[in-house]
Amino acid sequence: MPKKHYLFTPGPTPVPPAVSAAESRPLIHHRTAEFSALFEAASRRLQWLFDTAEPVLVLTGSGTCAMEAALVNLMRRGGQVLVVLGGKFGERWGEIARAYGLEIVPLDVPWGETLSADQLEAALAEHPQATAVCLTQVESSTGVLFDIQALARVAQRRGALAIVDGITGIGAHRFHFDAWKVDAAVCGSQKALGMPPGLAFVALSPRAWEAAERCDLPRYYLDLRAYRKALRDATTPFTPAISLVAALEQALIELQQTGLEPLWRRHQILADATRLGAQALGLELLAKADPCNILTTILAPPNVDVNRLLALLRDDLGVSFVGGQGPLKGRILRIGHLGFFNPFDIVTALAALETGLHRLGYEFTIGAGVRAAHAYLIEHGAEAF
Amino acid sequence: MPKKHYLFTPGPTPVPPAVSAAESRPLIHHRTAEFSALFEAASRRLQWLFDTAEPVLVLTGSGTCAMEAALVNLMRRGGQVLVVLGGKFGERWGEIARAYGLEIVPLDVPWGETLSADQLEAALAEHPQATAVCLTQVESSTGVLFDIQALARVAQRRGALAIVDGITGIGAHRFHFDAWKVDAAVCGSQKALGMPPGLAFVALSPRAWEAAERCDLPRYYLDLRAYRKALRDATTPFTPAISLVAALEQALIELQQTGLEPLWRRHQILADATRLGAQALGLELLAKADPCNILTTILAPPNVDVNRLLALLRDDLGVSFVGGQGPLKGRILRIGHLGFFNPFDIVTALAALETGLHRLGYEFTIGAGVRAAHAYLIEHGAEAF
Repeated sequence: MPKKHYLFTPGPTPVPPAVSAAESRPLIHHRTAEFSALFEAASRRLQWLFDTAEPVLVLTGSGTCAMEAALVNLMRRGGQVLVVLGGKFGERWGEIARAYGLEIVPLDVPWGETLSADQLEAALAEHPQATAVCLTQVESSTGVLFDIQALARVAQRRGALAIVDGITGIGAHRFHFDAWKVDAAVCGSQKALGMPPGLAFVALSPRAWEAAERCDLPRYYLDLRAYRKALRDATTPFTPAISLVAALEQALIELQQTGLEPLWRRHQILADATRLGAQALGLELLAKADPCNILTTILAPPNVDVNRLLALLRDDLGVSFVGGQGPLKGRILRIGHLGFFNPFDIVTALAALETGLHRLGYEFTIGAGVRAAHAYLIEHGAEAF
Repeated sequence: MPKKHYLFTPGPTPVPPAVSAAESRPLIHHRTAEFSALFEAASRRLQWLFDTAEPVLVLTGSGTCAMEAALVNLMRRGGQVLVVLGGKFGERWGEIARAYGLEIVPLDVPWGETLSADQLEAALAEHPQATAVCLTQVESSTGVLFDIQALARVAQRRGALAIVDGITGIGAHRFHFDAWKVDAAVCGSQKALGMPPGLAFVALSPRAWEAAERCDLPRYYLDLRAYRKALRDATTPFTPAISLVAALEQALIELQQTGLEPLWRRHQILADATRLGAQALGLELLAKADPCNILTTILAPPNVDVNRLLALLRDDLGVSFVGGQGPLKGRILRIGHLGFFNPFDIVTALAALETGLHRLGYEFTIGAGVRAAHAYLIEHGAEAF
């Protein structure tokens, strides 16, 4: 019998069978009415996902590709941008800005903590030349959720554009592009959408589109004006990853059948159950005050080598968790539960965690994590999902 | 019964079943030994395809994305670049160069014709400041093949970098990256590889890598140094389109089983047969002197509306050809035969063409095209493929 594999990683995530099937359907040409109908439908559904009346553009590329697109369409040469640095993906904003010679105002947040609206307000007051703020909704390197509604409001009040990395957040956490007055938001296909990686999505506010017209940073593949123009004709400026667009439409159909509120609620319950289960094993969480719902970040207990634990889980049990990044390398364990997960998957994740910890000699009551998580899931009606 | 669909387009092309199956296999995480083994194997096979000892880098993006990567890693701010304009894809080089504020020396070639080494030599002699030449191996908007070996030799002699769009050419036409001293070459997944679109490939020569170190154009997602560095660890700098990488490995395994010389020869025979078949119907070809083997470009006969013909073929017969682009819109018909095509497909393409032309009142001996193509295929042992 082949070994069963379990992907508990914060992207890529497991892909629903119908989405895989859509991906491997015979290709249709991208300059046809058939593709246009598919693309237009998927683009509309992305507007539903972002909760926006603005066009949501589809790029063939990674999430980083879309982050770069957002930044290079909104900034001017030598402009000043405030970058919130609270983890690896905040740092990525900084790296992209640096590559384009922008003046970066770093706003450091300790990894594992969040940023208050007041802190952002103070930083923007001190740097009135900053024309934009780069934010991360879910910092998946630490498991922290940032309050985009509050932070975007501050940016708006201070006259700075709010650029949001919603790559892992959108679809898993409440997000309202228009109502929250976000200026640019980015999402990736291999996260809450439960698709393979390869597509990324960007929306701009009317204010951001004005900036895109004035922007003088060089760009061609990432010129969002070309994508907006093409979308008006229900197409893309360059050959898209057609099979992934077919998968996207299927993934979005399934998400819409669930509905946004239940989708967010499901992520919440599964995340709460995972956290409770981990704590029932005596483990400590990294993101204490503002944990996100897309993954659980657990501090490595003393005397447990995270890398050995990860290797054992992966090689012996077929279970993929991930470790820490940057300064958190070797210090944390991350269990992903965004996208196509149900309550039984959470029970499995905790059973795997218990098995691994037990094998490495960590002391705890066997079954305590599984029991705590399962009880919480039943209490909260998780079986409805 | 559902209608059968036939894709005779110069990308996307039909995808072999095993490649589709590889694409829809359960996802593996991209930061694992399993993915690294897959990625390293596919990258090695790409070196075989490009015939190079240099690393061939895999980008998640369209062919244009890789063209931009080649240009922005090789040029310096305000630098001068000679662009060969002989069709839509030559023009694309110009558009990218313009977006980055480069000084463009246009070298116009009438659409449907090729460029001689002497012409390039004269242009470079006149513009000694040009540090690079942008070339197109197969101009798929016209069906013309450019002699990259000869043109790259001229560039080399004149001290200019030879940057080659081999998106549709590589894999279908003879190509030797190292031996021909090409400095940058680009290829796309949905062409001779017979994969879905979404991946693009770039190789740089040692001379080009030196230029990449000196280059001062802004780039992050397209910084090829990051891809080279990651490839040394058998990985990618950003999340790749994992399912397409799985498809890539399968596609390359199948191409290697065929071998490069038979692959090129097959494209040659299928193309010759298609051209002969079209001519046997009294049709005139656009690319007379230097036709490529990836598609056949046919001038619309008087009194035949190409758009009506294309619509009829597509909607009534399920057969996709494509029309002309730019100034050739409405003037030509393009039949693609690159990638996963066999001799019977060519017979089918001609049968479809005959059916469409007959329905539109064009006069010819019914069966003449099919017969000419089929006879040629048999004579040349095409059934071996």
